Amino acid sequence: MNKMRKIKGGVCAAEGFVAGAIGCGIKAGKATRDDLAMIYSEAASVAAATFTTNKVKAAPVRISAEHMRAGRARAVVLNSGNANACTGPNGLADARAMAASAAKALGLNPSQVLVCSTGRIGVPMPMPAILQGIPSVKLTRSGGTAAAKAIMTSDTFAKEIALEVTTHDGHFQIGGMAKGAGMIDPNMATMLCVLTTDAIVSGPALRVALRQSVEDSFNRITIDGDMSTNDTVILLANGASGISPSPKIFREALDSVTRSLARMIVEDGEGVSRFVEVEVRHAASRADARRAAEAIANSTLVKCAWAGGDPNWGRILDAVGYSGVKMDESQTDIFYDDLPVATGGVVSKTPVKNLRKVAAKKAFRVTVDLKVGQSSHVVWTTDLTEEYVRLNLGE
Amino acid sequence: MNKMRKIKGGVCAAEGFVAGAIGCGIKAGKATRDDLAMIYSEAASVAAATFTTNKVKAAPVRISAEHMRAGRARAVVLNSGNANACTGPNGLADARAMAASAAKALGLNPSQVLVCSTGRIGVPMPMPAILQGIPSVKLTRSGGTAAAKAIMTSDTFAKEIALEVTTHDGHFQIGGMAKGAGMIDPNMATMLCVLTTDAIVSGPALRVALRQSVEDSFNRITIDGDMSTNDTVILLANGASGISPSPKIFREALDSVTRSLARMIVEDGEGVSRFVEVEVRHAASRADARRAAEAIANSTLVKCAWAGGDPNWGRILDAVGYSGVKMDESQTDIFYDDLPVATGGVVSKTPVKNLRKVAAKKAFRVTVDLKVGQSSHVVWTTDLTEEYVRLNLGE
Repeated sequence: MNKMRKIKGGVCAAEGFVAGAIGCGIKAGKATRDDLAMIYSEAASVAAATFTTNKVKAAPVRISAEHMRAGRARAVVLNSGNANACTGPNGLADARAMAASAAKALGLNPSQVLVCSTGRIGVPMPMPAILQGIPSVKLTRSGGTAAAKAIMTSDTFAKEIALEVTTHDGHFQIGGMAKGAGMIDPNMATMLCVLTTDAIVSGPALRVALRQSVEDSFNRITIDGDMSTNDTVILLANGASGISPSPKIFREALDSVTRSLARMIVEDGEGVSRFVEVEVRHAASRADARRAAEAIANSTLVKCAWAGGDPNWGRILDAVGYSGVKMDESQTDIFYDDLPVATGGVVSKTPVKNLRKVAAKKAFRVTVDLKVGQSSHVVWTTDLTEEYVRLNLGE
Repeated sequence: MNKMRKIKGGVCAAEGFVAGAIGCGIKAGKATRDDLAMIYSEAASVAAATFTTNKVKAAPVRISAEHMRAGRARAVVLNSGNANACTGPNGLADARAMAASAAKALGLNPSQVLVCSTGRIGVPMPMPAILQGIPSVKLTRSGGTAAAKAIMTSDTFAKEIALEVTTHDGHFQIGGMAKGAGMIDPNMATMLCVLTTDAIVSGPALRVALRQSVEDSFNRITIDGDMSTNDTVILLANGASGISPSPKIFREALDSVTRSLARMIVEDGEGVSRFVEVEVRHAASRADARRAAEAIANSTLVKCAWAGGDPNWGRILDAVGYSGVKMDESQTDIFYDDLPVATGGVVSKTPVKNLRKVAAKKAFRVTVDLKVGQSSHVVWTTDLTEEYVRLNLGE
């Protein structure tokens, strides 16, 4: 029997991992806050990673993907303030130089270092400051929170979590940190996430577990439907606990970590006032369930209604309709939490004031039951507020 | 040689058409403004129509589509204040009753009357008021503007236009009215449009011309990516001018009318402060050109940047990237009006202040040159403002 409990430490909760951060003044030109982080496994590790599916990929994504082919990553260097995206061949050279500099400081081969960047697009990286910063990062067992803070952009809180998992044979640790905020969408939108574990997991098993776990966590969240050029999720496993959990136990622990971080990202979306779980049930296919759920979650009109605490169902039904999925309006039920708002495609008898109470909550659930099949899909999303627009008006 | 000149009269500019409006208090319960309009061809006419592709179709769309099969429509009855959408079997009966009432008043068969509704979704139509209003509408040759005003919802101005087209044989008239505002997207989102002409055009030719013209006008506009349940474009032709224009001349005139109305709809989008023409050039296919252009036009982050007068190109390149079209970032050029903002996927040498001047204009053009093929596509869209969110917070 296994049990999981939350512990402190973030990316350093797992044995053998150290982290740290430093301020290089990447965005502002002077170091007002930490903007560069490093995470390092003192023991040999295996790695898995997933990257943005955007055809425009930032330089660090290209370099990290290249380094992943070796499968022996032991360190990650991350920065905020500059995405090193849309920066051409110079950007690629800069991302390579970051990996090389970290590798030199840690005594690794450059291909053992992965690079993540987040921040402004299309602006050259301030390399002198960065190359001066990397060797100066102090890596410690208590540096997880500093690393999580250093990668924040418009995030309002550092996102980290760690679990201790007790198995028959003893316990292992798994933890992680993430940054999110604007531009979050399924298929790995602007978010960076580094996960670490001291469980013993083979490289192939690690890759399968990460791919599936990302599908059920980060790929279910959507804030504004935009997908970034930099999204990266990295998982390092160094086996330092000596515990080799079953795939099922490892997956449960990993899912718990990725889902917690995904939820934190949504809750911290730019200008967000509502966390909404959208479930489409009984769709004709998994693809249909997903398409309908994402159409609802990405509808600006639906999201504006939620911002106003309006339990609008016409806009929801409209979004399902234009998503193109198989449906029969006269069979479709819609719920806010457990209250029916539309039954068979027409308004329900639920008193509007009860529905308004749900839509005014900070977190609620919208369920659409299509009654045409057996597939369902859940996405996590937010409302769309005036503040979101204000935050995104310009640079 | 043909020439076109703008004339007054809207849907009544063409000979043999009369229109009028009346206030029934459809939304408010008391008649504070006209909310019901009728348009009637005194002579026999042929008709063409296109309807929303949303799978959730409002009752008037279903009934009008049914009546269109006869192909002999001579009148349109329209209302604002209630969309008669998501209203179940009662809604269908109500739409039928509206057509029957108008038919009785005009001495027509009910199948000769088309019905359009716009306004709130999911609320039963106040039929007693509507059925009292329909026979009381005064139809006159000067009623076009009153009809255009009666169908406004969040529109800030009535949208109408008419042209006199001079051909070798004499002149014919073509005109129209539309309502738009929120929820505008390609594939016929919430907009109603009635077009009238006194040219002699056969039913089949009219249907071809309308389908193509809608494709090149209303289906190119997008405000928020949402598509409505009620969108309808109707074209009535009664031949009263005695002129039978060539298909080319007729199409030119029709396009001029539909494009003018489409542009008015975009300019009057809810909370709009920018009119933006987005062109994607040299895409690998027409589908790619369209997909990329629509991804840009529907990106909330791109639209927020425009609202702030920010000539952001990273967000544009990002949107093209996640649209999934064939592209090579290092070959992609982006322009604001004629100024390059990104060349070969990296920032151009254009001074930022010059680009800011363009992005601060009320109307500008964004061009993305993919350089991978021969296809291009243009869409018309807007920025996304705090006011848009405010207007859509609730009912």
